[in-house]
Amino acid sequence: MAARSAEPVRVGLLGCGNVGAAFVSLVDAEVEAITARTGIHLDIVKVAVRDPGRRRAEGISTEQLAGRLTTDGAAVVDDPEVAVVVELIGGVEPARTLVRAALAAGKPVITANKELMAAHGAELLAAADEAGVDLLFEASVAGAIPLVRLLKESLAGERILRLTGIVNGTTNYVLTRMSEDGLGYAEAVGEAQSLGYAEADPTADVEGYDAAAKAAILAGIAFDADVVASDVHREGITAIGASDIGFAHRLGYEVKLVAVVESENGAVSARVHPAMLAREHPLASVRGPFNAVFVEGEAAGELMVYGRGAGGRPTASAVLGDVLEAAHHLSEKTTARSARRRRVRLRPISELSTQYYLSLDVVDRPGVLAAVASVFGEHHVSIRSMEQVGLGAEARLVFITHTAREADLQATIAELAGLDSVERIGCVLRVIGQEPPAGEPA
Amino acid sequence: MAARSAEPVRVGLLGCGNVGAAFVSLVDAEVEAITARTGIHLDIVKVAVRDPGRRRAEGISTEQLAGRLTTDGAAVVDDPEVAVVVELIGGVEPARTLVRAALAAGKPVITANKELMAAHGAELLAAADEAGVDLLFEASVAGAIPLVRLLKESLAGERILRLTGIVNGTTNYVLTRMSEDGLGYAEAVGEAQSLGYAEADPTADVEGYDAAAKAAILAGIAFDADVVASDVHREGITAIGASDIGFAHRLGYEVKLVAVVESENGAVSARVHPAMLAREHPLASVRGPFNAVFVEGEAAGELMVYGRGAGGRPTASAVLGDVLEAAHHLSEKTTARSARRRRVRLRPISELSTQYYLSLDVVDRPGVLAAVASVFGEHHVSIRSMEQVGLGAEARLVFITHTAREADLQATIAELAGLDSVERIGCVLRVIGQEPPAGEPA
Repeated sequence: MAARSAEPVRVGLLGCGNVGAAFVSLVDAEVEAITARTGIHLDIVKVAVRDPGRRRAEGISTEQLAGRLTTDGAAVVDDPEVAVVVELIGGVEPARTLVRAALAAGKPVITANKELMAAHGAELLAAADEAGVDLLFEASVAGAIPLVRLLKESLAGERILRLTGIVNGTTNYVLTRMSEDGLGYAEAVGEAQSLGYAEADPTADVEGYDAAAKAAILAGIAFDADVVASDVHREGITAIGASDIGFAHRLGYEVKLVAVVESENGAVSARVHPAMLAREHPLASVRGPFNAVFVEGEAAGELMVYGRGAGGRPTASAVLGDVLEAAHHLSEKTTARSARRRRVRLRPISELSTQYYLSLDVVDRPGVLAAVASVFGEHHVSIRSMEQVGLGAEARLVFITHTAREADLQATIAELAGLDSVERIGCVLRVIGQEPPAGEPA
Repeated sequence: MAARSAEPVRVGLLGCGNVGAAFVSLVDAEVEAITARTGIHLDIVKVAVRDPGRRRAEGISTEQLAGRLTTDGAAVVDDPEVAVVVELIGGVEPARTLVRAALAAGKPVITANKELMAAHGAELLAAADEAGVDLLFEASVAGAIPLVRLLKESLAGERILRLTGIVNGTTNYVLTRMSEDGLGYAEAVGEAQSLGYAEADPTADVEGYDAAAKAAILAGIAFDADVVASDVHREGITAIGASDIGFAHRLGYEVKLVAVVESENGAVSARVHPAMLAREHPLASVRGPFNAVFVEGEAAGELMVYGRGAGGRPTASAVLGDVLEAAHHLSEKTTARSARRRRVRLRPISELSTQYYLSLDVVDRPGVLAAVASVFGEHHVSIRSMEQVGLGAEARLVFITHTAREADLQATIAELAGLDSVERIGCVLRVIGQEPPAGEPA
């Protein structure tokens, strides 16, 4: 039952950037509606910021924050009036120290901090468990999309096989523009920068670092696995050209950057790489800056959740959902179910078996194809289809393989790179979906 | 934290059809894994069925059920050993009486019963609230798709604007086959019947009764509104022809049967009807028997959840998630948050404003188009685009309107039906999506 006490639940906020300002704006504007709906009256009593004079997002004025602002995060955590701590600072420190202090003081913590949860999730969840309080982090991965609740509650009894996610809006925007409007990679990245979807230095997005941190969090919530961002195999989208996307289209595929976590015989695989997805796959139609995570469960079958993976207000909405859960638990003297992590064996990428797409630039002279094909054969990588695209004196060869071992594919690539006739190894994409039966067109 | 007691949570099951057998099979097979993951040891101790001799689905043998079977549902509910009651009988009675008895005895109830929740949801939730126990019903709408938790927990602080759902797998299968493979309506329904997706009498699906019951449940979880199935405006798919789908395709739309619930100024609209969805809309790519619900929230923006809307094992997985929540709450002496319903003003369909697609069969003679167009004009319905498809002496006219009032559109249709030159009113589809700015192609 909802807490129907008139006593407000006093919230201390750490950080007031885009998400923090949206959270203040949302709670201040909706406080009566939220109380009417949930019986919980929220009151943000303290807001710790670095620079109290700075202009805030979401039209939050200095007057609106008057009497609530401080530069001392520890004072917010220690304030006996503060019952719930919301951490929206981002980055590892001082967030980690403040979150630990709040948990040690018996205060539930809500965080949207991807870096923190990807690096120290296991440690912080154990600290919460010991203290007997909630550490809720729905907003730390894929913004407004409710993955933690889906996996820890709705699918609590389910044997999860695999999650496949589009969890980086920037790269999905870039790939969507390349796919739908024929833009080149550099042009699409430039446009994403001018729209504010990509940073001036886009490395964290296009090289897959952001997605890898999210993959680590996904492995935690899907398998209770203590996986950190640096455990995740990571490839970005910089090698993908317009011709790769055109080839994928002709075969009925879309190219997406995916984060995949799967569990098999107790070993967990966590990886980020571009992939070819059949156009009928629900993830193939996730366009622009949207995020989605596709879940495969033993009994539930296929599920997908889709929504805004970033942005102040969507992320603030997810934070608010967690704050209301923590407030309900406080009034009921209970907590969310335990989410203790355990170390697992990480399955290296070399043990993966899948189909591959590979493009090569070669010198266009007789015998090249035979030489290339024999390298595939030597490494037991069977070619399902091949196409040659002429480029004057050079040619591009594109291959799709039958299911092969990653280690064999990498050995093939290493040997191909050493051939005189191979100018450049282009793009490697893993193909997601069932291999069609022999005789059917790819 | 999870209940780590060795004491099993004893479950009484009412009904052992497809979902019930899948639930028994899932719990019996996964009991150790579930205990390891959640700390909760489930034990199904009693199973009430009508005919103990009947063969069960999912390979459940009579031996497996030995000692647990009974024909007396009330005895299961009353058994002091049974701590949690799972109702999978379906239909209103005796399910309603048994659920009320269980709640009155202070036992949490998990139900997958759509008819029951669509007809008596408000009454049963109030009874659960009074008794201070859980009544959980995630599996009663859209199978494995976690809508209750999404709306009541993740979006607890969110102002929900609208849900739009594909919640009937049979009609979605039929419309997918018509759209992708050019089948006619009757042919597609026949195929759905032979695959077991449609009943011998497909009325409940194709006339929208099943989707209307789900819409009532959706209005309850989105707006705490006491809406019953008969409150829902309902139109089916029987008037949709191959030419309507072809026309929709040429304009960039897919045709889907949707359930829509929305809230505006405290009034709730609940309706089921076929609609034209722009191909870029996330619901447009929901194919075959899959279900999905698209959620629009004030702060969270657009979200979608997608998955198996029916089937024994997916539905059993949702039931299991609820059983584990109820067991956790029992051990923590708490309950889910209150979900009391309230009566709301229902907004009649006549107050709807949207764009429309309308097809008419007319006698092909001079002046017909002028006569038809003047009827639209008299009723203030502005035509955005028109196309004439010749059919010998007859012709089909298809129209897309600008945004118009439903009452005006219905008055237009009534007057058109009375024209000598109009042979037949074909299909009416509401168009979902923004109206393009003037001058842009439809």
